[in-house]
Amino acid sequence: MRAQGNPYGLHRVMEPLGELPQAAQRLDASLPLYADEILIRVELVNVDSTSFRQLREISQNDPDLLKKRILEIVRERGKLHNPITDSGGMLVGTVAEVGPGYGGPLTLKAGDRVATLVSLTLTPLHLEEIRGIDLKTGQMEARGHGILFETGIACRMPKDLPERIALAVLDICGAPALVMRHVRNGDRVLFVGAGKSAKLSAVALKGEWESGVKVECLDVDAQALHDMREMGLADETHAGDATKPGGLEFLQKGRGYDVVVNVTNVPGTEMASIMAVREGGTVIFFGMGTSFSKVALGAEGIAKDATFLIGSGYVRGHAELALDLVRESRALREWFERKYSV
Amino acid sequence: MRAQGNPYGLHRVMEPLGELPQAAQRLDASLPLYADEILIRVELVNVDSTSFRQLREISQNDPDLLKKRILEIVRERGKLHNPITDSGGMLVGTVAEVGPGYGGPLTLKAGDRVATLVSLTLTPLHLEEIRGIDLKTGQMEARGHGILFETGIACRMPKDLPERIALAVLDICGAPALVMRHVRNGDRVLFVGAGKSAKLSAVALKGEWESGVKVECLDVDAQALHDMREMGLADETHAGDATKPGGLEFLQKGRGYDVVVNVTNVPGTEMASIMAVREGGTVIFFGMGTSFSKVALGAEGIAKDATFLIGSGYVRGHAELALDLVRESRALREWFERKYSV
Repeated sequence: MRAQGNPYGLHRVMEPLGELPQAAQRLDASLPLYADEILIRVELVNVDSTSFRQLREISQNDPDLLKKRILEIVRERGKLHNPITDSGGMLVGTVAEVGPGYGGPLTLKAGDRVATLVSLTLTPLHLEEIRGIDLKTGQMEARGHGILFETGIACRMPKDLPERIALAVLDICGAPALVMRHVRNGDRVLFVGAGKSAKLSAVALKGEWESGVKVECLDVDAQALHDMREMGLADETHAGDATKPGGLEFLQKGRGYDVVVNVTNVPGTEMASIMAVREGGTVIFFGMGTSFSKVALGAEGIAKDATFLIGSGYVRGHAELALDLVRESRALREWFERKYSV
Repeated sequence: MRAQGNPYGLHRVMEPLGELPQAAQRLDASLPLYADEILIRVELVNVDSTSFRQLREISQNDPDLLKKRILEIVRERGKLHNPITDSGGMLVGTVAEVGPGYGGPLTLKAGDRVATLVSLTLTPLHLEEIRGIDLKTGQMEARGHGILFETGIACRMPKDLPERIALAVLDICGAPALVMRHVRNGDRVLFVGAGKSAKLSAVALKGEWESGVKVECLDVDAQALHDMREMGLADETHAGDATKPGGLEFLQKGRGYDVVVNVTNVPGTEMASIMAVREGGTVIFFGMGTSFSKVALGAEGIAKDATFLIGSGYVRGHAELALDLVRESRALREWFERKYSV
């Protein structure tokens, strides 16, 4: 056991020194543990959707190339931090050890199965091997270890949900919580992207206000839109390419949406989201491909005065809220079962 | 005169087709004008601070190299869009022509002197020459033309303020307006960066609430901090490097700030801003070097539940508010006169 570290993990940063782990080029993921850390034996890794999409593209959907590239990143950086998309993912594993000097908020003990709720871009990670990789979902079976600092968080894996479903839900559990914080009864809400974040968030909205909230959805994927309607989660859907807002006629009509929720993993959808929101409304960006300057300058460029939020992955109570949504909505649970069955 | 264009400027996009002007690689800045456009003869250009800093670095402070690089960007892209920082600037000039089909909100006529309030990253621009360039401020005298679309905005140059001061103020006029929208009486506010945006915003805060609002400021530049105190704009200042938050002890004490305003042109200051804000507080990011993913994942990484805003350059009434601050605060006006005198 090594000495006491730093609550933010500064002691694990190798390059450049003085940076925080997320900004660092390289972390030290070696053992033994520092006294204030938690050691987790890794079993399952969920690669962030934007990162996985990019890695799949450069590997031309070849699972072996993909595994090789992911192992390379982790070996070089001491963390799963995609240098192109600047995003990571999360992991599931078993607590191997809680350092005797640990003073953080978690009440974990050795043997607990947990999911980490901090990004893998700042989690010291060592992978010995990747066994299986699911090209549809970005989930992979892996063996190795990860380390949590005192400021990091994790949650116990629920016993009543299949593990892959719980992991898929926890991966984006910030979305429904933040959406619920910013939507009011009577609002018109547009989701840009009809994936799992949109579905979870729409279940939360409809569960709270039913038809009081009008939900619409934009996606290129007709099946995803069909699912949203079938599941009773969208009052209206729009098939179209959010990266080409010039071609989206519905955006140029009407008074605009009260809240726009950007949940795509495709870069270049900022302007569609900005054009869609009404004056004084709110856009929440969750897609890790979002460009800060495209939003700031794009909004200025069309003189749209609205609130533009960076959707952080952490909102108090987010994990419980998201898991409860899957527990309580049969349609949602069935959708996750279809998509995340092994 | 060409035919009617598109309010968002789609008709000027050459590559890739279908993109909006800000996202485009290349715009057509050629004449004649389309019927719904406004033509401006360019006289002064204010390069965005983050972009100018990067251009000055690669030109090693050589004015001729700097001019050459800026002319190259404008020639290649048909707009002043720095490909590295993804930011632009704004311009001052004289309205040469308002197309007969123009149906936008501006009431300009030929001969009006105006500043454009939309970014140069989406403004078709042709430059014949750059005459002078001020290495301190990023302002340059230039000759050429720029084009405004119907969704673009501009304001008449005030007659009671020196032109270079008005341009410097209008460049960042979104900051005080957005800060005033999010700060409440009684708040503790931290500015990360002590440049002109911090000064303008602090004048607005102190003008409204005096000692009701506690203003603090973090910067590496002792002179900038000294000026903030001397001008009565900061109750407390902290000398330190916001790119190395691990070394900033004052951030790790106390309950955190209600509102943190990031107004630096230095990349890598996201974590300091996130660590500084209290749970439930608000961070407004204005620096064009801000990384979306560093904010989203950094906040998640230390489980900080707060509101993270992308500071858009447009807030209704922003130009008038900012110019009035300089008119009404003698200390601020004198500071601008010292800094922007020719």
